[in-house]
Amino acid sequence: MRSWLAIDSDSDFSLDNIPFGIVSPLIKRGHWDDEPRAAVAIGEYILDLKKLFDYYYTQGKSGHAVNKFDHLFSCVIGYDTCKYGDVFTRSTLNDFASLGRAAHRQVREGIQVLLREDTPYPQVLKDDQLLRSTAICLRKDVEMHLPFAIGDYTDFYAGYHHAFAVGEMFRGAANAIQPNYNHLPVGYHGRASSIGVAACGSAAITRPVGQILLDPSAEVRKPTTAPSRKLDFELELGCFICVPPDQAGARVDVGEADEHIFGYVLLNDWSARDIQAWEYVPLGPFNSKNFATTISPWVVLADALEPFRAKGIPNQGPTPIQDYLKEDREESCFDIKLEVDLIAGDNATTICRTSSTNLMWSFPQMIAHHTLGGCALRSGDLLGSGTISGPNEGESGSLLELSRNGTKDVLLAGMESRTFLKDGDEVVLRGYCKSAAGVRVGFGECRGKVYPAK
Amino acid sequence: MRSWLAIDSDSDFSLDNIPFGIVSPLIKRGHWDDEPRAAVAIGEYILDLKKLFDYYYTQGKSGHAVNKFDHLFSCVIGYDTCKYGDVFTRSTLNDFASLGRAAHRQVREGIQVLLREDTPYPQVLKDDQLLRSTAICLRKDVEMHLPFAIGDYTDFYAGYHHAFAVGEMFRGAANAIQPNYNHLPVGYHGRASSIGVAACGSAAITRPVGQILLDPSAEVRKPTTAPSRKLDFELELGCFICVPPDQAGARVDVGEADEHIFGYVLLNDWSARDIQAWEYVPLGPFNSKNFATTISPWVVLADALEPFRAKGIPNQGPTPIQDYLKEDREESCFDIKLEVDLIAGDNATTICRTSSTNLMWSFPQMIAHHTLGGCALRSGDLLGSGTISGPNEGESGSLLELSRNGTKDVLLAGMESRTFLKDGDEVVLRGYCKSAAGVRVGFGECRGKVYPAK
Repeated sequence: MRSWLAIDSDSDFSLDNIPFGIVSPLIKRGHWDDEPRAAVAIGEYILDLKKLFDYYYTQGKSGHAVNKFDHLFSCVIGYDTCKYGDVFTRSTLNDFASLGRAAHRQVREGIQVLLREDTPYPQVLKDDQLLRSTAICLRKDVEMHLPFAIGDYTDFYAGYHHAFAVGEMFRGAANAIQPNYNHLPVGYHGRASSIGVAACGSAAITRPVGQILLDPSAEVRKPTTAPSRKLDFELELGCFICVPPDQAGARVDVGEADEHIFGYVLLNDWSARDIQAWEYVPLGPFNSKNFATTISPWVVLADALEPFRAKGIPNQGPTPIQDYLKEDREESCFDIKLEVDLIAGDNATTICRTSSTNLMWSFPQMIAHHTLGGCALRSGDLLGSGTISGPNEGESGSLLELSRNGTKDVLLAGMESRTFLKDGDEVVLRGYCKSAAGVRVGFGECRGKVYPAK
Repeated sequence: MRSWLAIDSDSDFSLDNIPFGIVSPLIKRGHWDDEPRAAVAIGEYILDLKKLFDYYYTQGKSGHAVNKFDHLFSCVIGYDTCKYGDVFTRSTLNDFASLGRAAHRQVREGIQVLLREDTPYPQVLKDDQLLRSTAICLRKDVEMHLPFAIGDYTDFYAGYHHAFAVGEMFRGAANAIQPNYNHLPVGYHGRASSIGVAACGSAAITRPVGQILLDPSAEVRKPTTAPSRKLDFELELGCFICVPPDQAGARVDVGEADEHIFGYVLLNDWSARDIQAWEYVPLGPFNSKNFATTISPWVVLADALEPFRAKGIPNQGPTPIQDYLKEDREESCFDIKLEVDLIAGDNATTICRTSSTNLMWSFPQMIAHHTLGGCALRSGDLLGSGTISGPNEGESGSLLELSRNGTKDVLLAGMESRTFLKDGDEVVLRGYCKSAAGVRVGFGECRGKVYPAK
């Protein structure tokens, strides 16, 4: 698909993508136009959906000729969405998500039709210079906001090689994978208030202070309160939930879980390993994780990833998994190429290259498990995959693995090396899918920079 | 303090209490009056704060005589609250909480002044029959709603005797308390969407289905997916956070944490012990907890509990606690008498009597720890204390302890016994403080009934 807008062939935000986000003008003018609202990214541009719908409503309300436009527009963009068109004027995507997958599909496809070089409806946007100048602007001229009001955030542990590597480090290879791991997607409740995006540039991550056990071998264990010395990133995929209101609180069958997925983001689950090691027994991670979690600001719709389905890691257990987790299809993951850059000073080094096919549990399985006992999911809930690592050198999605818990230097460009993150370091996650035909659908960047402890 | 309203001397909702909640009429009339809004409980009555403020605004807008009333009212109830008077017309207490402790205090004291037998302002409410009949109704004629939009829910583990008893059960007395327990308030992030109140009567708790390991000793561990056989309650105290907007995201000093506490509720952290035992390694409880958590619907303001300060359990560690957790005052807890009734069929048995003085960590300490690393608290966040148990027989706040993990029958009235909860069982938590002079401040009931698995 080609667009009448100029889009680089290596752009993550191709016409095949159309990811959704919440934007506001970078330069504030002190009036209503400053408010955050919905947009889609397209190449270096954004299409402001509020402006598009405002224009549509204004036109639609005056006379016969525009009633044809009205009708056309609602056919292209979707009647249900137009009916509830003000979902795009709101400061989050929650209400749009709650319209359900069919509405997301119709809006995405409608926008693709309007932006296609050979659009059959050039009068709607392509040839309307006023609307184009009103609703389309450069991506660098907007700042980004959290795409959703996140009711609850759950972080899973579905990256098999990460779970194995961390288990091996602390318990040896024979006991690396714990007995429940092959039977259920292990997860924990994260802190919703910790989720943030970079408004522009990098999200600011303040090094957390916490209790640390400097000498775990001492007879009387005496912690110290200090800035974390083992600040780490975690490369994850995030999944935003959509629940049509009539299905609130229901148990979700694994075969129907796709209908509860709005879309995906990259997720950096910043972690303080020294705080985590001391605090996590017996109830799991707490202050080691709740200081910051960064997501990429553009949400790639589930439909946009469908062409890139692939098999994940097969279940490693000796016995079959429980019925409620069995999927009919083999290709329950996506093949998203994932990369991590660590920027130290002026030099960027790609320290990890892996793929989301390293997940052993799929998001539909996570959803089926999450709702099995009666836990209600809500639109805007965020699920994290857990750290994604491959089995080989240079494929690990955390410094804990790359530096073997600080015992091995990770070499960087410019004669630098790291075990864990230093103040001033910047971590950039990237992810994209690419077909044999060259179609690219990507996530853009998830970028955060470390600042000294307060 | 005596009121011109008839209040039983053993009522939890005395004039010294004035707890806040969100109510709507039990019988809906299909119009604006059906909407949830703020109220306080007083004896068997509620005072509808929306109606009170609506009346005040209507009166205040017409003429000289009522301007005096206007002035009087804002002096009694608090200028700031009147300025933002519509906080009480909203469907949650979040915005009221964000006004800060001084505003809560002024409103509570203002309401006490209006309701006192010897009120100096009888013209405002006592002698105004129209307002009385509009704004005051019987508690049994309203249904209750969640008092807050809960952004995040954290559950701590601060009940020392509970932690010891559970630790002893699984690891023996020597290792019952884990090394970090005496140094930090261990806690985990719970599921905000799991929190509910009983609209009237009992909250309906559906027995959760989950993965259970029926034979943990088998060489190959093979779980079963089935309704929980070890459904339990947990007796806890809940604490609602208030954060003035200008302090959002700040680290909270332990000495200033009181200013971040709106008030308290009873909390039943329903738990499926068999699901928990299998799932919780290594990231903590998940489906064993996220199916339901019930709170009592009336929030007792922090000020109402101030007269009942008491010492908690002294820290048990061999070394002093970290500076950021040190409190100046010794009486960092409240002496809240706590009771649990288990109703099986027609018979109620009080199976636990204990006190909140069995907490080893105070809520100010939990808040200081929670925010140490940079985690932002928000108004409406809920903190659970963890299960509160005393050291003696009949003082345990869970069936796990009372039945020693199902190995001992808990005897009930009517020739019944339990190890864990059966379908149809009802659990009622109660809590109250009472002074030597007979002043009583209580929480009412936190009531839930178990229904069969779906």
